[in-house]
Amino acid sequence: MSTARYDVVGIGNAIVDVIARAEEDFLLGHGMHKGGMQLIDEPRAEAIYAAMGPAVEISGGSAANTIVGVASFGARAAFVGRVKADGLGRAFAHDIRAAGVGFTTPFAADGPSTGRCYILVTPDGERTMNTYLGAAQHLAPDDVDADLIAASTITYLEGYLWDPRNAKEAFRRAAALAHAAGRSVALSLSDAFCVDRWRDEFRELVRGGTVDVLFANEAELKSLYQTADFATAAAALREEARLAVVTRSERGCVVINSGGLEAVEAFPVERLVDTTGAGDLFAAGFLVGLARGAAHATAARLGALAAAEVIGHLGARPETSLKALAAQHGLG
Amino acid sequence: MSTARYDVVGIGNAIVDVIARAEEDFLLGHGMHKGGMQLIDEPRAEAIYAAMGPAVEISGGSAANTIVGVASFGARAAFVGRVKADGLGRAFAHDIRAAGVGFTTPFAADGPSTGRCYILVTPDGERTMNTYLGAAQHLAPDDVDADLIAASTITYLEGYLWDPRNAKEAFRRAAALAHAAGRSVALSLSDAFCVDRWRDEFRELVRGGTVDVLFANEAELKSLYQTADFATAAAALREEARLAVVTRSERGCVVINSGGLEAVEAFPVERLVDTTGAGDLFAAGFLVGLARGAAHATAARLGALAAAEVIGHLGARPETSLKALAAQHGLG
Repeated sequence: MSTARYDVVGIGNAIVDVIARAEEDFLLGHGMHKGGMQLIDEPRAEAIYAAMGPAVEISGGSAANTIVGVASFGARAAFVGRVKADGLGRAFAHDIRAAGVGFTTPFAADGPSTGRCYILVTPDGERTMNTYLGAAQHLAPDDVDADLIAASTITYLEGYLWDPRNAKEAFRRAAALAHAAGRSVALSLSDAFCVDRWRDEFRELVRGGTVDVLFANEAELKSLYQTADFATAAAALREEARLAVVTRSERGCVVINSGGLEAVEAFPVERLVDTTGAGDLFAAGFLVGLARGAAHATAARLGALAAAEVIGHLGARPETSLKALAAQHGLG
Repeated sequence: MSTARYDVVGIGNAIVDVIARAEEDFLLGHGMHKGGMQLIDEPRAEAIYAAMGPAVEISGGSAANTIVGVASFGARAAFVGRVKADGLGRAFAHDIRAAGVGFTTPFAADGPSTGRCYILVTPDGERTMNTYLGAAQHLAPDDVDADLIAASTITYLEGYLWDPRNAKEAFRRAAALAHAAGRSVALSLSDAFCVDRWRDEFRELVRGGTVDVLFANEAELKSLYQTADFATAAAALREEARLAVVTRSERGCVVINSGGLEAVEAFPVERLVDTTGAGDLFAAGFLVGLARGAAHATAARLGALAAAEVIGHLGARPETSLKALAAQHGLG
């Protein structure tokens, strides 16, 4: 196995977040599941946008946020995902490159416009997401550059890739290429509703060894094993996964592997503004730790640190250098 | 004079802000005047964007920010300004309407894309602006709806309108229509460099009575009268203006009229994040007070309150209801 050129390459739906504050009534009135991610078509996207309040546009996308976090830690990062050459697509490409991430997926020449996620942030800081995938649906197996995957220590995939048909094939190809090169594959389950759509396939990915490292939050884990009991779900996951991390918001996380379960604390948060990106940034820190060969508990602390930073402001990408923040906390 | 349909109608350059954090070195390396606003052409806009960090897109424009602030206070507000029907233009139109502002200026059918301002926020919270006017340059006298102006208690204009040739004519037409209907005209000087470009014309607008209410910050006032001494400049302004308010950052403001000078305190700010919009939002509060017939000192407190809100977060438009905030502070 040759020396890695990247620590982590991420593959995901390339999305721009359109974020507005909203009251609980707005979610109810528009039939939204609070805290979840719903896929929407273009007419519904237009209707939600017309009804929602003044918004801020910030590049997002789950795996893309993670990869920007990886770069912010000073690790070498690349991203694969599809946007169109419209205003939002150019902003997405600018922002991810400006964050120091290698991004070379060509713009989609035709078809729908750049994907976007209408995110409504309620006064409690919770976010409710409505995603119009747009050009992200056109991510295809050919977009997965074999050399890039082979040259990356970890290939990181988001569960949301299971929604667009072609992206699923791109995911499978990337995992096969990574393993053929002796590299690792990590997956985030993304969202409890996404797990509900693809439960059997996700379990098979973990059980069959397509995925070496699994990220889930508590709701996703419970959805995966269809139980309301955390201990039951965690025990089932331990049977099937090589390495998994389950995040539990302010209760920190649990690292699960054949050695058992290890709980790691969260970082205190001064002011919770917007939970968007908490899971994405946790994954960033953990992946950086893994790529550096750190102990799992240390990797989990890096994850917790990054998550704490991102929920202190609007938007799902870090506003401060995670490398500097880690150094301040003796995790550099 | 018939009953007003709007408290304030604003006319200004319709701009989307593209905001990124930057170090002082970046400003130096790109020949930018810290704290100022520079007009740039399209190639320079492209070059700055390519070099700057990951950005957030938020609707802006000086008078547009003010008008959104006016609406946030619960007053009736309208805006006139030109964007193109591209991604940024649609976002601008959405955001200002979603804020409760009447906005009916048609999209520019051709010509340059929607205007944008590349704003670099340094670690001290100061903002340095680079504006590509784009479609905003095509605001023309015909865009000024005579009925709208006649039906608004105050017509509010930004000094930046003096930069695009047609916009200047639109400004003159709006002021004439307002006065013909027995209404008031207010002007913000916008920026010390803008004053430097148009000093004589701005002084003539004030002296000749085209402008009834003048907003300036300390730097703009000193530039207007080409003196480094505040007292000298304030005395000169008192000779020429009917009513003027000079903002002095954390030192509050001074209201100037024939009765003399009255100092009004600033509101304390918990955490200074980004000064973008401080002057715009001060004007919003003051105009709301004026439209309600409040005492000048009360109007100035409303202005100070709105300015304090907007500098506590990124972006130049309020994130909380100014009406509720004013009520909390006994200014409702």
